[in-house]
Amino acid sequence: MPRPGPDAELTPAELHSSLSDPLLDVMNFLNEVTLRHPKAISFGPGRPYDGFFEVDRIGDYLTAYTRHLEADLGRTPEQIRTALFQYGRTNGQINELVARTIANDEGIHVDASHIVVTVGCQEAMLLVLRALIAGPDDVLLVTDPGYVGITGAARLLDAETVPVPEDDAGLDLDALRAAVRDVRARGKRPRAVYVIPDFANPSGASMPLDRRHQLLDLAAEEDLLVLEDNPYGFFSRTGEGRPTLKSLDTRHRVIYFGSFAKTCFPGARVGYVIADQPVLGGGARTVLADELSKIKSMVTVNTPAIAQAVVGGMLVAHDCRLREADKELIDFYRGNMNALLDALARHLPQDRWPVRWNVPDGGFFLVMTLPFAADNAFLEEAARDHGVIWTPMSYFHLGSGGERQIRLSASYLTPGQIEEGVRRLAAHVRQRIARGS
Amino acid sequence: MPRPGPDAELTPAELHSSLSDPLLDVMNFLNEVTLRHPKAISFGPGRPYDGFFEVDRIGDYLTAYTRHLEADLGRTPEQIRTALFQYGRTNGQINELVARTIANDEGIHVDASHIVVTVGCQEAMLLVLRALIAGPDDVLLVTDPGYVGITGAARLLDAETVPVPEDDAGLDLDALRAAVRDVRARGKRPRAVYVIPDFANPSGASMPLDRRHQLLDLAAEEDLLVLEDNPYGFFSRTGEGRPTLKSLDTRHRVIYFGSFAKTCFPGARVGYVIADQPVLGGGARTVLADELSKIKSMVTVNTPAIAQAVVGGMLVAHDCRLREADKELIDFYRGNMNALLDALARHLPQDRWPVRWNVPDGGFFLVMTLPFAADNAFLEEAARDHGVIWTPMSYFHLGSGGERQIRLSASYLTPGQIEEGVRRLAAHVRQRIARGS
Repeated sequence: MPRPGPDAELTPAELHSSLSDPLLDVMNFLNEVTLRHPKAISFGPGRPYDGFFEVDRIGDYLTAYTRHLEADLGRTPEQIRTALFQYGRTNGQINELVARTIANDEGIHVDASHIVVTVGCQEAMLLVLRALIAGPDDVLLVTDPGYVGITGAARLLDAETVPVPEDDAGLDLDALRAAVRDVRARGKRPRAVYVIPDFANPSGASMPLDRRHQLLDLAAEEDLLVLEDNPYGFFSRTGEGRPTLKSLDTRHRVIYFGSFAKTCFPGARVGYVIADQPVLGGGARTVLADELSKIKSMVTVNTPAIAQAVVGGMLVAHDCRLREADKELIDFYRGNMNALLDALARHLPQDRWPVRWNVPDGGFFLVMTLPFAADNAFLEEAARDHGVIWTPMSYFHLGSGGERQIRLSASYLTPGQIEEGVRRLAAHVRQRIARGS
Repeated sequence: MPRPGPDAELTPAELHSSLSDPLLDVMNFLNEVTLRHPKAISFGPGRPYDGFFEVDRIGDYLTAYTRHLEADLGRTPEQIRTALFQYGRTNGQINELVARTIANDEGIHVDASHIVVTVGCQEAMLLVLRALIAGPDDVLLVTDPGYVGITGAARLLDAETVPVPEDDAGLDLDALRAAVRDVRARGKRPRAVYVIPDFANPSGASMPLDRRHQLLDLAAEEDLLVLEDNPYGFFSRTGEGRPTLKSLDTRHRVIYFGSFAKTCFPGARVGYVIADQPVLGGGARTVLADELSKIKSMVTVNTPAIAQAVVGGMLVAHDCRLREADKELIDFYRGNMNALLDALARHLPQDRWPVRWNVPDGGFFLVMTLPFAADNAFLEEAARDHGVIWTPMSYFHLGSGGERQIRLSASYLTPGQIEEGVRRLAAHVRQRIARGS
């Protein structure tokens, strides 16, 4: 029998500081409010709409993928079995299909070996940051407000992040240049800037074409890499699309994060990163993707073959053209964003109420500015007394900012829910304004 | 048009130092040799045998899981669709099934909420190390020789690892105590010791019961956590099993890494970690598993629902008793290890040749000691001239060690291949001894 001895007890002070950083559970209050008020209509989470999914299709996609392995790639039954059940290549099994799909859908033409298939975009972000952040002097620049996933990944690696403000046309390039020079003046090294050029989360802002070219030029001039994240690019509200930074990148400046969470489904957790940057050293010449694979081998070893097979099957089934396959979904999101804008205009006419919101060209999110603080207390009141939930924009700022703003997500509600949700939100906002507090 | 500007070029010096660490591509030479000599019989990789897998079963397992959600948990079709296609709980969806399975198979009784389902064991190791390694003074102790996955994960986090030698009965506890005190004497903090108590990779060593109790006592006395990794525990050659450290752990000293890669299949990349250590702070009381979930939300967000569903379906289909379900597989590995031992005894009788090997109680690996250096040159010669491949043990040592040893894996060959492979290995070894070099 083991002798008695002290029970293991841990304290936050003993654990990595990221665990005490509000960043890593910034969403907890939102989640708690949602759990406490399950009947409330929630504009909170940016979840994709899953009404078009059918469980039975999973088998069809698996079959489509195994047929592809057999008919197109000439694999034997044993090889197909191994492809599905065994450990696989670290950098992925469906890279060729992914390369074909982004060529068709985004006009991005890259070698399949420059792609690493990852467990969602999140793993890709961690791999890239681990590769680029060599030490305490390396700094990541991020749009502010920004996506929690990139700042959270940086936090896990003790990497300094410097916020760069956005305007209605996305990343402020003058502010970026100033931030880069300020970082250098501090004796540190700006490594990369993270940006969502299309229908950004959380702001909904999109970068015009000329600004995209200017960002690429600035990156070349300042020897900066650009981390382009593009989960929402398909979902244009206006019907017009802009070229991705990667498709305009002639100088290997752009590392491109791709996700199938919104264009296929989140449950597969399959994303990818394009990292075609040459890495020169000791005679050997590799590309950054090869280095990312080395890191991935110590993070997840490889992306689950089963998940790759289902997504690969979807790509095969749609002839590597997801944009066409997602037409119904794209129309759905367009309709939702229009319904949200329309309901806001009717329930909170801006000529009568001191309330403003942006008009995104697409995506899942818009930002509303209120004449008072949109804090957790107001959120709790909204859920409890008015049955409506949203996300305080302050959650998405690295420092201060967004105190009077809320993010509204229209991605997974029905138009009817959006109408009712906005009616409740408007009633609450008008009441609060009348109350003058 | 973008103005011309410098092309992005990276050098290893700009990237994280782990990428220049031989550790992260220690296996490259082995992989290259294997690719250059595809016809060689390879005792190299520790891949599970996949001859028992059937592609058609994937659909059956998915169905078993959805039936479980419907019949046992009363989920609606919409809820089932969401469970498979949407983002899921960060700490996992099949935790209850995993908890039941480890209770049945290992006598480990834990609350499902103390389990985090991960993308293979590898992600679990990274999460645990990120939580425990708070700064540069925190040190991880690892068995030497040891598993590359744990030292590699530590390397990604710039965590210092201190090797602790093994003997035939596993981790040397006197050496562990000395190492712990040496670390403290250097003003650093030993956080945890990583160990594979059953049929270790790479050594094949197993810890007797009394040493397990002594390790737990030592951990309590020295305020150390024990990271128990148990991928091979099912595969006893002798038919006898020993209790896991976690099943003996009365003081929350053990963090347990579980894998379904060998007991179900690797292609799902589903593993888990049991982290029931209390975390006390700021009034709140959580368990370490909750903290690991926060980190996981920034690494992979959640383990792919599709992969969890397939593994969950296997658990349901086998009534949460994998040990019984794996009987045929367990017999296969027993037969292979016996075939390997038998062939070695016939082809390299130790009374006639200065060659030694250990006799593991089970698992995938044994270690052979040669009277000369088993380096990459000898490996190349073995593959090229004798059509046989193995792994130099020096790959598995943090510093020096294992220069005259090789690891033989019998996990995925047939008994016939093992016999022929050992014949070739023996011919090469005898020739080399005769050559006197």
